[in-house]
Amino acid sequence: MNRVRIGVDVGGTNAEAVALAAGGRVVASARRATRIGPDGVVDTVRGLVAELADGRRELVSVGVGIPGIVADGIVRHAVNLDLRETDLAAALRGRLAVPVAIDNDVRAAALGAHATRGGSLAYLNLGTGIAAGIVTDGTVRRGASGAAGEIGHIPVDPAGPVCACGQRGCIEAFAGGAAIARRWHATEPALAEVVGAHAAARTPTDVSPVLPATDRPPAIPPAPLVVFDAADAGDERAIRIRDDAVHAIAAAARILVLATDVERVVLGGGVSRLGERLRGAVARELDRAAAASPFLTELRLADRIEREPAFSHVPAIGAALLPG
Amino acid sequence: MNRVRIGVDVGGTNAEAVALAAGGRVVASARRATRIGPDGVVDTVRGLVAELADGRRELVSVGVGIPGIVADGIVRHAVNLDLRETDLAAALRGRLAVPVAIDNDVRAAALGAHATRGGSLAYLNLGTGIAAGIVTDGTVRRGASGAAGEIGHIPVDPAGPVCACGQRGCIEAFAGGAAIARRWHATEPALAEVVGAHAAARTPTDVSPVLPATDRPPAIPPAPLVVFDAADAGDERAIRIRDDAVHAIAAAARILVLATDVERVVLGGGVSRLGERLRGAVARELDRAAAASPFLTELRLADRIEREPAFSHVPAIGAALLPG
Repeated sequence: MNRVRIGVDVGGTNAEAVALAAGGRVVASARRATRIGPDGVVDTVRGLVAELADGRRELVSVGVGIPGIVADGIVRHAVNLDLRETDLAAALRGRLAVPVAIDNDVRAAALGAHATRGGSLAYLNLGTGIAAGIVTDGTVRRGASGAAGEIGHIPVDPAGPVCACGQRGCIEAFAGGAAIARRWHATEPALAEVVGAHAAARTPTDVSPVLPATDRPPAIPPAPLVVFDAADAGDERAIRIRDDAVHAIAAAARILVLATDVERVVLGGGVSRLGERLRGAVARELDRAAAASPFLTELRLADRIEREPAFSHVPAIGAALLPG
Repeated sequence: MNRVRIGVDVGGTNAEAVALAAGGRVVASARRATRIGPDGVVDTVRGLVAELADGRRELVSVGVGIPGIVADGIVRHAVNLDLRETDLAAALRGRLAVPVAIDNDVRAAALGAHATRGGSLAYLNLGTGIAAGIVTDGTVRRGASGAAGEIGHIPVDPAGPVCACGQRGCIEAFAGGAAIARRWHATEPALAEVVGAHAAARTPTDVSPVLPATDRPPAIPPAPLVVFDAADAGDERAIRIRDDAVHAIAAAARILVLATDVERVVLGGGVSRLGERLRGAVARELDRAAAASPFLTELRLADRIEREPAFSHVPAIGAALLPG
């Protein structure tokens, strides 16, 4: 019987799981809507584990990547999941007779990105919020207080918008999915008029979670998609919001490389599902800045930017690797 | 006979050396003017080694911290020392019959700061330029291309002054010693009028290298001192230049903590010899920003800021530790 390690990436809307065979090969995957609250999250994880570790596979361990501050199996401040302070590891160990490990979802994803690439890297998660998981010498860096990689709250423009964190002009205030939506909807434009029937027709599909089609990439957060489409159609406000977001993501990449000199910056998370439209724009912004700076040119920043393919299962793969 | 490891910190103006006994205790120190060029630098290091490893001490190893890009003992781009590409390790090994190791001066200083403190830290070198040496898990981080810690060239204000690197609004363009001098002298004020006889009288002493008084702290770069004095005296232009510098150093500290979550940020280098005037101002700036941000408050940034005392010999101590 196949021995498998199962990893679950618990998102605010959906949870994804993979089963890894020996050698790290993905032999199965599953996806379902996340139920929130301590019991809901435990049931969600258990349901996915049961689905993947059926009679044909022997379960070795379970790893869970989850938003929030995670230390020693305890999840704090996972607001969207309604987990204020939950000992998720203990709750799962009580129901699964195998080793269980829990970590922050971005750090787990960084571990997964590293497993598929090697070398040193930062996994730059562009979701509702923005943070990075940093892997050097094969180790995910946590830092002295678990804050390593919280670069979303570095200000890049003192004249920028106020961030949810209280500062002004943070990277997240320009490029976080929630901030892009807030800026775009600030004046409530008639979407169909602004972006045309094409994008307007596509939006509802992307908004609604479609389940349980595991072979379908997760939805792009609608606001970034709508803004990029509107910018392509020439809308000046959309162009400004898009360019600000691209500029902030490029700033994040530059900060990550100048502080830690990782070989790669891997764009992940919901906003990254804009794909090459986003990666290419960020790389061009970095090249534009480097054109004026021999120092930056030598760092080859644009060449270090990659994006995580939507089907890669990297966050769940990293979660599966957490138990070690 | 005492067995000693000697470390030499080669600066653009002066070179300082220490002799470490077993256990890391400093048993002797020396200081002399740096001679530039490949032969000049080798002679400077040899002279200091001969002075410290006289007949009473047995030499175990020599480590050298030096500006520029250093890899495998080869020093590149050390412009102020007139070293374009010099195999300094080979040149020294030919003349010293002991192990020799060379590294960038900021990384060596970070190693020295770590040796005296433990824990994880960033040594933020505030000199003519700005860079940090980052120590986590007891290891100085180099990064994939030797650029780890080059945070001086992270822009913090898109409307800021053009930096020597070609970008605009870099940390170094606000807080580097050379940039402060350039901004201050931009309109050539009559110093004596602006800052009063006190500071004006002190300036010439600080400009000229005073040698070989090893028991005297290195000079504060004159422009930052004059600017801080003038700001205290109420000069509005000086207040702006000072506040911009403090703001940029606070930004550097925030970037270092959010990217790497080091326990401490140690202010070192010439500009840091402003002492508590600078450290206190940076800590107040961080507290001011945290007042609006529960997120920052939790990180206790101001508490992490320390300054390296002027007499600490930390750069040379770190150099002595390079051979391992």
